[in-house]
Amino acid sequence: MDQVPGSTGTSAGFALRLGQTIFSSASLLFMSFGVQFYSYTSFCFLVTIMGLVIPWSFILALVDGYSVLVTCPIRQKGILFIIVIGDWQLLSTLALGAACSAASVVDVLLRADGSSSGSLCVPSNCSRYLISSVFAFLTWFLSMASSLFNMWVLPSL
Amino acid sequence: MDQVPGSTGTSAGFALRLGQTIFSSASLLFMSFGVQFYSYTSFCFLVTIMGLVIPWSFILALVDGYSVLVTCPIRQKGILFIIVIGDWQLLSTLALGAACSAASVVDVLLRADGSSSGSLCVPSNCSRYLISSVFAFLTWFLSMASSLFNMWVLPSL
Repeated sequence: MDQVPGSTGTSAGFALRLGQTIFSSASLLFMSFGVQFYSYTSFCFLVTIMGLVIPWSFILALVDGYSVLVTCPIRQKGILFIIVIGDWQLLSTLALGAACSAASVVDVLLRADGSSSGSLCVPSNCSRYLISSVFAFLTWFLSMASSLFNMWVLPSL
Repeated sequence: MDQVPGSTGTSAGFALRLGQTIFSSASLLFMSFGVQFYSYTSFCFLVTIMGLVIPWSFILALVDGYSVLVTCPIRQKGILFIIVIGDWQLLSTLALGAACSAASVVDVLLRADGSSSGSLCVPSNCSRYLISSVFAFLTWFLSMASSLFNMWVLPSL
């Protein structure tokens, strides 16, 4: 069968994995440097999930890059099945949960700031939390796209 | 092909839909009666999503119940495709997002209660928010199960 752009072993798939790695790293960096993220469970959850997504996406980016270079895409059903399950059921679900949690906590903190003179969150920290959750949403979106493209390929193997 | 238990038109599928309807109604009731949910965006989001899930699950429960009674399961690929897309991409994603958001806001409110003499949330309200998010997670879980069973049936039609 033809190659589906975006599936494992294509250059579009490589770009998706690279995007996931970059966005999840950015999310982790904005959350963890100079910010006391450990005072909120949701932010700890986000950091944990991004710490899982980064190695997963990076390894799969390496695999995709290698497949593109040697022009030999992955065709084993078992491997692709593991990739789809890992992408979809674990990482994209968890990344969505983490992004939603972090975004809603930021919303609460920003509102509390407006009403009670900034007791919960320093404004500069709040904007970093916000940027971090936006990057987490982008990570989820790309992870979902990878998963859908691979799932599309799966039945034809 | 054989019937997959849990897919549309089976008695297990009917039970799943009924469970979704009950859990989402419970989530909506615990959130909305006697509680000022509109002061937090996440809770408004949860109420909106549960307001979408209830009619969707209820209508599909009626369809499943009818199919079981007349023993004539749905076999049209187009209809099943719409059900899978609606279940999975819209409702289960949105339900997960809403449940995570609500749960993380409850976490923040409970912590703020412990430290600063209950300024953000009356304890009885907080427990209702908490029960509401637990029901939202259960709704997501059942919605995901329905979607997976239907997706399993889809390629064989």
